[in-house]
Amino acid sequence: MTGKTSQTFSRVHIVGTGLLGTSLGLALRERGVEVTLEDVSPSSLSLAEDYGAGVRRSPGQEEPELVVVATPPDVVASVVVQALEDYPHALVIDVASVKAQITNDVQSHSPHFARFVPSHPMAGRERGGAVSGRSDLFTARPWVLCAPESESQETIRAFVVSLGALPIEMAPEEHDHAVAVMSHIPQLVASLTAARLQDADEKALDLAGAGVRDVTRIAQSDPALWIQILSANAHPLVEHLKSLRDDLDEVLTALGSLDASGSRKVLAEALGAGVNGVSRLPGKHGTSTAFASLVVVVDDSPGELARLLTQLGDWGVNLEDLRLEHSPGAQVGFADLTLAPDVVADVEKQLREAGWRIAGERS
Amino acid sequence: MTGKTSQTFSRVHIVGTGLLGTSLGLALRERGVEVTLEDVSPSSLSLAEDYGAGVRRSPGQEEPELVVVATPPDVVASVVVQALEDYPHALVIDVASVKAQITNDVQSHSPHFARFVPSHPMAGRERGGAVSGRSDLFTARPWVLCAPESESQETIRAFVVSLGALPIEMAPEEHDHAVAVMSHIPQLVASLTAARLQDADEKALDLAGAGVRDVTRIAQSDPALWIQILSANAHPLVEHLKSLRDDLDEVLTALGSLDASGSRKVLAEALGAGVNGVSRLPGKHGTSTAFASLVVVVDDSPGELARLLTQLGDWGVNLEDLRLEHSPGAQVGFADLTLAPDVVADVEKQLREAGWRIAGERS
Repeated sequence: MTGKTSQTFSRVHIVGTGLLGTSLGLALRERGVEVTLEDVSPSSLSLAEDYGAGVRRSPGQEEPELVVVATPPDVVASVVVQALEDYPHALVIDVASVKAQITNDVQSHSPHFARFVPSHPMAGRERGGAVSGRSDLFTARPWVLCAPESESQETIRAFVVSLGALPIEMAPEEHDHAVAVMSHIPQLVASLTAARLQDADEKALDLAGAGVRDVTRIAQSDPALWIQILSANAHPLVEHLKSLRDDLDEVLTALGSLDASGSRKVLAEALGAGVNGVSRLPGKHGTSTAFASLVVVVDDSPGELARLLTQLGDWGVNLEDLRLEHSPGAQVGFADLTLAPDVVADVEKQLREAGWRIAGERS
Repeated sequence: MTGKTSQTFSRVHIVGTGLLGTSLGLALRERGVEVTLEDVSPSSLSLAEDYGAGVRRSPGQEEPELVVVATPPDVVASVVVQALEDYPHALVIDVASVKAQITNDVQSHSPHFARFVPSHPMAGRERGGAVSGRSDLFTARPWVLCAPESESQETIRAFVVSLGALPIEMAPEEHDHAVAVMSHIPQLVASLTAARLQDADEKALDLAGAGVRDVTRIAQSDPALWIQILSANAHPLVEHLKSLRDDLDEVLTALGSLDASGSRKVLAEALGAGVNGVSRLPGKHGTSTAFASLVVVVDDSPGELARLLTQLGDWGVNLEDLRLEHSPGAQVGFADLTLAPDVVADVEKQLREAGWRIAGERS
């Protein structure tokens, strides 16, 4: 996906040299595009130049064909309005993780709104800044485009594809509700759940299995970044979060009065709704097939896991997903293989015949 | 861990031939122990016999040295009391996932309480029943023992170790609070979060990344089983869940009035508490070191991942954890390697020199 592809633009100007701006500069330079950079912080700008993400604009330099606004969310709209004014022939995109407010602000303040495409590459990292920039940050990641009725969007779509990203078209409000459910609520819930671990006994922590680890993994993310994101999307977030809080209150009431009529039904419905919801997540490659899992016991060394994967490869088995799991103190691990349901029985048989121990499916 | 080890008991009787009873029977038979089985359901009993988990007791057969009560939670206490009566020289354990109520009930109703060790192997599976039984279900899993002051517990500890499990000693109430935080709250939170996905647009679902997948993965678990577990541990669960609900309410209030003084501080504290909490989870092998992660782009085939792991093995690199991640529609995957922080830079350099593409750390 990072090979040479036909280029949509030959001159791109990037405003804001944080993680996304720098990564985009690196990706474009790798593809032979001329990239100029701008940042209010001279030291950030120099750093991004040193990284090879592009160079600062010189006076009288030819106008860019595309301007990418990659500043912090609170100044995006005004920077976009200015860019539309400064570069009268350029398309302008932003890459902020919330869209409705920015889109409305630009529309209210610029007569050149038709040249703006609000966008959001779903390609964050836990650490920000130019130093974390990677030229393949966008590879195989969804990139939302929020100007559905616009001709400009067709050009930006081709640009996004040339970077190896996966374009998805949404209205700005649709995007903000989507990320509230798909990203912001999971983040908050992970943090709130992980907060319970602060006061847990050491011995209790030793009981940690795959479940609590999965649920709390993203609670490691940078609070400073997430305060900005959550604040900027507060309206849709509050709406979805309230419905979660209401469900939680019902569960609390039911657990507090288990003998009351209907209490167990409340629990059943809450758990059943979760089963229904998670089953809607797309599988690998966008398919929605339900997958089966097979857990293989492996000795604790990368060589052993490599041997397992080599055998699966030799047999032509396609893994949908793979996870390694360890228990505290254990010297063996579990390789949790996710497979298409129709091959599970055969793969299990082959593995057993090859001497592997199968530990079944685990939650 | 499943090799022949010195046996603590030579005759074990198992009451209840579901997943845990059957798995235990299989594990003990594999170690040459004589296992007898009992179940109120004749068909379940026959099935477990067919699976080779043991045989039913014949009249006048020699008394077992250990009785394992593996029935549904609501009848555990009375079955334990009866077993202590029926087998006057045997130790008795149960394997239910809640402990305080059962322990109290047995203590109130049996003069032979000293021969009882309440226990809980942390070894569930999403599917129950004898058909899901596995002889290595307990391998490398924590197994909680809840009779801290008892001589009997020393014997049971040796028994658990002989099965390859990891004994952890706790008081019954301590256990119930621990599983509320480490297992029951994560389960409920995963279900409540996944429930939001029920009404999400198809396009919104396409934005699913590793975060929402991690948080909702265990929402796939069997509701019927979890209604029992949550109900049986309602008291400690409500206590911890209320504190989560209170935190959630504070966040909701803050998001609803962002301009109010202190609102962003509330968000910062909630997110910061999550960072603190998740950092307390033990790493692999019970260590608490913080790990670093490195994300490598791999073509979508098990052979390619095997090649990566073979190289890491050749270089002597020890993986703390490994995950594969895919985006919808993508034909490349990301192998997320968790490594000791002091080796990350070297491994990254070696991988780049060997031609691998590094995509950085992702949340």
